[in-house]
Amino acid sequence: MNEHVDSVFPDDDDTPRPSSWSQDRRLKFIDFRLRWEGRINRSDLVDFFDISMPQASTDVSKYSEAAPQNLSYDARIKSYVRTPNFKPLFARSGTRTYLNELQALETKIMEPKSSFVGWKPDLGIVPLPNRNVEGKVLSTLLQAVREGRKVFTLYQGMVRPEPVERTISPHAFAFDGMRWHVRAYCHLREDFRDFVIARLTIMQVGDATNISKDDDTQWHTMLQLVISAHPSLPQQARKAIQLDYGMHEGTTKFECRHALLFYALRRLRLETPEDAASGAQQQIVLLNRAELQPFIDQLQTKKTA
Amino acid sequence: MNEHVDSVFPDDDDTPRPSSWSQDRRLKFIDFRLRWEGRINRSDLVDFFDISMPQASTDVSKYSEAAPQNLSYDARIKSYVRTPNFKPLFARSGTRTYLNELQALETKIMEPKSSFVGWKPDLGIVPLPNRNVEGKVLSTLLQAVREGRKVFTLYQGMVRPEPVERTISPHAFAFDGMRWHVRAYCHLREDFRDFVIARLTIMQVGDATNISKDDDTQWHTMLQLVISAHPSLPQQARKAIQLDYGMHEGTTKFECRHALLFYALRRLRLETPEDAASGAQQQIVLLNRAELQPFIDQLQTKKTA
Repeated sequence: MNEHVDSVFPDDDDTPRPSSWSQDRRLKFIDFRLRWEGRINRSDLVDFFDISMPQASTDVSKYSEAAPQNLSYDARIKSYVRTPNFKPLFARSGTRTYLNELQALETKIMEPKSSFVGWKPDLGIVPLPNRNVEGKVLSTLLQAVREGRKVFTLYQGMVRPEPVERTISPHAFAFDGMRWHVRAYCHLREDFRDFVIARLTIMQVGDATNISKDDDTQWHTMLQLVISAHPSLPQQARKAIQLDYGMHEGTTKFECRHALLFYALRRLRLETPEDAASGAQQQIVLLNRAELQPFIDQLQTKKTA
Repeated sequence: MNEHVDSVFPDDDDTPRPSSWSQDRRLKFIDFRLRWEGRINRSDLVDFFDISMPQASTDVSKYSEAAPQNLSYDARIKSYVRTPNFKPLFARSGTRTYLNELQALETKIMEPKSSFVGWKPDLGIVPLPNRNVEGKVLSTLLQAVREGRKVFTLYQGMVRPEPVERTISPHAFAFDGMRWHVRAYCHLREDFRDFVIARLTIMQVGDATNISKDDDTQWHTMLQLVISAHPSLPQQARKAIQLDYGMHEGTTKFECRHALLFYALRRLRLETPEDAASGAQQQIVLLNRAELQPFIDQLQTKKTA
């Protein structure tokens, strides 16, 4: 089962040396199609890259010199096919990369020409009805971060009925699993906060800011979360959940910025302390809650902007 | 604020005609860098694509002939810069595409050479401690779907303590917001079910299946979900949530496969009927729950594999 796991891509020494960016793409295309679609022929290269047949032959030769064990020619279907010993040469053929690409194609985030996917299985993606970020708002925020400037905004918070004028000094972006935020110093509240980008309007880039992102302690503090399957579940359900989360000896650990702790707990349904009744809903528990409680309390006094 | 929204990319007639796949990439690179980083010069093209300076000049000319209003030359920084009237030419420069790319780079799903991102802001992504799907398992399942074959598997379900032998006929893949599933006919349970890929092991591709994916009614049935902000929240919080979800006149509608309904409700925290107390936790309510209840009940008798 472990024949071609993603973590064992060969060192650079073993991979073919492309003569150009374009050839690099084509060698990766060959590797990708073999891994995920089981076959490749020269016409695939000609059609996708608008190259000549002789160029396609050169590319295939270059690939098979580097990895002769990966492919064999099947005269019946006039294609090179993946061998049972196939090992991907490039991280571009990684499993997560492939799945992300399927998802991005399905949700029209990726244009087909950017993708190496030829044959696509039927896909179902759980829809998220979140608002798209507006391009102009995002590019304005990016400019402010890049140039270290303040931005004048109107922000719809959760506390006041109308949007409030806020001058912010943004320094980073965050994705909470659902929505994109900009992380910024709020000159009104005099503190670093999260602003949901979809709630920001009327933006103008101002002067250089005097705020240093180094002072955003919660952003830079990394915390460790330790989770396990919910102990109130029957053993077989715990086993299944351990597989889902890739747990090792019943637990898994991961890092999270202090600033993102609430969102991580929310995403994993761990905001409220678990009890015996919560197994079916929560599935997992946070083993080091006591250790994290002071960090949770700190956020509770502030929450988002 | 609506100057360059993603939905109004010009028709094909207005976009430049690239002479090759490679030039198509380079024109899109110019558009992308102008939109998201505000500037581009010929050296950026030379460095990224390993092309000559004259080729880079040709590319920039081709781009600016098609969209002279998008860029101007700034002699001070020896670069072309984005104008205030900039309108992206290509879907490759879309906002969701850009954000997806930032996220994929940050989580190492995307290799930098595949991305057009040059300057990257600081990013925080809420971590999801889910297990990576194994490449060999995924490519075996893909092969079975492509060739219409059965697969012999061992599956760790939630009901029996040990993994159980299952012969399945897979026909599609699904992402529930957290985990990847394969959608398959289970020859043991004689029904179409979801199998979490991370719980499948020991797989062998078998003979052609006699199962038609057309018979998977729950997969092919599309349901409409209608949500609104939770009515027990104060008006200002409802306003903020309406912005988060891109609601129009207080509601938003989206489609979901019947087979994915549980996951969608879970992801949105709408599995249990909302009451007045649940506003702070749930934030949103499902307006057409009564209409969907028969579909929910159907799934409850079966759940996942």
